[in-house]
Amino acid sequence: MAQIIIAKKVFFNAAHRLHAEQLSDQKNKEIFGKCNNPNGHGHNYTLILELIGKIDPITGMVVNLTNVKKIIEKDIIDRFDHKNLNKDCAEFKKLVPTAENIAVVIWNILERTELKPYLHAVVLHETESNSVRYQPNS
Amino acid sequence: MAQIIIAKKVFFNAAHRLHAEQLSDQKNKEIFGKCNNPNGHGHNYTLILELIGKIDPITGMVVNLTNVKKIIEKDIIDRFDHKNLNKDCAEFKKLVPTAENIAVVIWNILERTELKPYLHAVVLHETESNSVRYQPNS
Amino acid sequence: MAQIIIAKKVFFNAAHRLHAEQLSDQKNKEIFGKCNNPNGHGHNYTLILELIGKIDPITGMVVNLTNVKKIIEKDIIDRFDHKNLNKDCAEFKKLVPTAENIAVVIWNILERTELKPYLHAVVLHETESNSVRYQPNS
Amino acid sequence: MAQIIIAKKVFFNAAHRLHAEQLSDQKNKEIFGKCNNPNGHGHNYTLILELIGKIDPITGMVVNLTNVKKIIEKDIIDRFDHKNLNKDCAEFKKLVPTAENIAVVIWNILERTELKPYLHAVVLHETESNSVRYQPNS
Amino acid sequence: MAQIIIAKKVFFNAAHRLHAEQLSDQKNKEIFGKCNNPNGHGHNYTLILELIGKIDPITGMVVNLTNVKKIIEKDIIDRFDHKNLNKDCAEFKKLVPTAENIAVVIWNILERTELKPYLHAVVLHETESNSVRYQPNS
Amino acid sequence: MAQIIIAKKVFFNAAHRLHAEQLSDQKNKEIFGKCNNPNGHGHNYTLILELIGKIDPITGMVVNLTNVKKIIEKDIIDRFDHKNLNKDCAEFKKLVPTAENIAVVIWNILERTELKPYLHAVVLHETESNSVRYQPNS
Repeated sequence: MAQIIIAKKVFFNAAHRLHAEQLSDQKNKEIFGKCNNPNGHGHNYTLILELIGKIDPITGMVVNLTNVKKIIEKDIIDRFDHKNLNKDCAEFKKLVPTAENIAVVIWNILERTELKPYLHAVVLHETESNSVRYQPNS
Repeated sequence: MAQIIIAKKVFFNAAHRLHAEQLSDQKNKEIFGKCNNPNGHGHNYTLILELIGKIDPITGMVVNLTNVKKIIEKDIIDRFDHKNLNKDCAEFKKLVPTAENIAVVIWNILERTELKPYLHAVVLHETESNSVRYQPNS
Repeated sequence: MAQIIIAKKVFFNAAHRLHAEQLSDQKNKEIFGKCNNPNGHGHNYTLILELIGKIDPITGMVVNLTNVKKIIEKDIIDRFDHKNLNKDCAEFKKLVPTAENIAVVIWNILERTELKPYLHAVVLHETESNSVRYQPNS
Repeated sequence: MAQIIIAKKVFFNAAHRLHAEQLSDQKNKEIFGKCNNPNGHGHNYTLILELIGKIDPITGMVVNLTNVKKIIEKDIIDRFDHKNLNKDCAEFKKLVPTAENIAVVIWNILERTELKPYLHAVVLHETESNSVRYQPNS
Repeated sequence: MAQIIIAKKVFFNAAHRLHAEQLSDQKNKEIFGKCNNPNGHGHNYTLILELIGKIDPITGMVVNLTNVKKIIEKDIIDRFDHKNLNKDCAEFKKLVPTAENIAVVIWNILERTELKPYLHAVVLHETESNSVRYQPNS
Repeated sequence: MAQIIIAKKVFFNAAHRLHAEQLSDQKNKEIFGKCNNPNGHGHNYTLILELIGKIDPITGMVVNLTNVKKIIEKDIIDRFDHKNLNKDCAEFKKLVPTAENIAVVIWNILERTELKPYLHAVVLHETESNSVRYQPNS
């Protein structure tokens, strides 16, 4: 029996500022443009977590989505929703909170949960037109 | 010349109930929660069929989508649209109609059609936030 | 100061069957077509509740959306989500659960809550292409 | 000849914090909940500007959308996009930047432009599920 | 009993060119910009037809949507879908096919059908960000 | 460090006609149906460009999206937006402008830009229900 991928979509709203401490203010402005605005800006982030595994022949499920949702809410939403990523979240004290880095951070957090054996990809939409997909095991 | 993937999106609306005959009523409630409601509930399913193949140098097409649409309508939509999956569809007499199982059933049905050489993936959205992708040959 | 309209979108998934007891089986089939399927089918309903009022000069809000959400969840979602509208919901024992009737029923339920002074419209999407708007006071 | 409504959709991304200076910290927390987070959070705002007027019999247009877009970009997007509404925007120094207030502020700004005779409504989506409509002349 | 609004969404894909015969080529270019391209361009049009009326107490419907769909397909879709509006459609021989004019033309066509007593509004989306609403009786 | 995929979505509106010069008019009609309409029709194309690479440890980015956007606008949007693909674009003088061929043409154009080392896939949506994915290196 082949594996199947399950995708769960959730939302969180956060402020962030793109600014690399190792670079000069001038360089930061050049690279990040208006995303470098000192007081920050924000986004409605759409997170799609993809899990992979075999379908249980009795339940017809790979994992129980009710459980998945609880883990995402506890470990991701409660941590990042309605937060200022740079100021409120330890993960981004030294890491620029680009969509790329946020996706990797989310993957790493979920790897320390019971979802680890199922993790397939973290997809993160920052705006209607920009998104990233982190799928390190493929 | 590399291959290209074609995706066709269609919709069907169906009722279902998640309930495994092999399990006790108590266990069914624990696992499926409100999806175990005895009288069922329902969804607008969005099905995306992905086909893969080489582009014909004259027509610029892999397969004729008009033909693809006819097959999907005859073999999938007419079978599942405006149906109660548990009660009206032989496929789910003994199989719990989770999104996972519906996707596999759809794949298996399409494997018995002339689309077989092109089948790449069956993607099924059950709600705005839950979907599955079945891509057994990759 | 002019009034402003606030819209809150929520979802529920339900099964239903369109069948009028006053009509013959033949007539029901003619009118409702595949929606008359005896075992029912289902939908992901999208409900948009529109409220109207003046903006409080201190809070900048018309009503507290946290409170609105609680009322909608208690009085609408808990009642209709993951239900068979015909079999599980007293409201539709004698009333055909068309989108039109569901919208009116939702309005009437909300008129008995503290949201009454703010009610502007109930918009209900039954599928991607069909929706209704009930706005009785305009 | 009847009038017609034209709608133009644009986006801006901003940080904000809901906090009323006239209220105690305790009261602010009660009212605004997680939106009161001291370091703010953010959103992808979707703004739909509705204009109304008669169709010019020669051009088939009410207003030239290229011109409308320029005005919105200069007067709204440049002002609010990639900003912290509370800290960077004079409009919200004393006004809580709720969606309601942002919509009214946008209307008032546009009333001072050449779009004034055409203004019909300002619709602002703060998240996928929350939006406001300000249509003061109806 | 109050009235209710029913909305039906359909799609058609067409080419068009914005060019007013009464104006000079130079003036056409100034007004219509890239939409004046001599060989035309095209759009996926989304048409939302809004109908209004009282709910039939037995069927729970204002009008039968199956019938509405047939009329829209015969009178609108067959006429405009996969057409060049300027060259293939008599309606736009002398009328610039702006979204505004297309909406009015659609309204006028539907006024000559049995839907006339129910017509409430024609909403036409030309792109993700541009749309018009024609609602002449309000 | 694993690679990550960045996706950038853009839009262009174009007219096209599906017609293969090597085939008879009768054969063209059979294969392309209404898409063979002599005067053409059109679409709102949604292009999603996927780029892949390692995240720069300082900037948190794979590539600078501002730069990516400039390249897409100069090399793709300016070339195809508001054009008649068959008549205005040299690429389709002898190639039928199906979504499949447009995707390959876009890939080939981008391979001649500085984005070449990052190219992962070109996804092109022609309508709400039809899309293609060209990912030749996987």
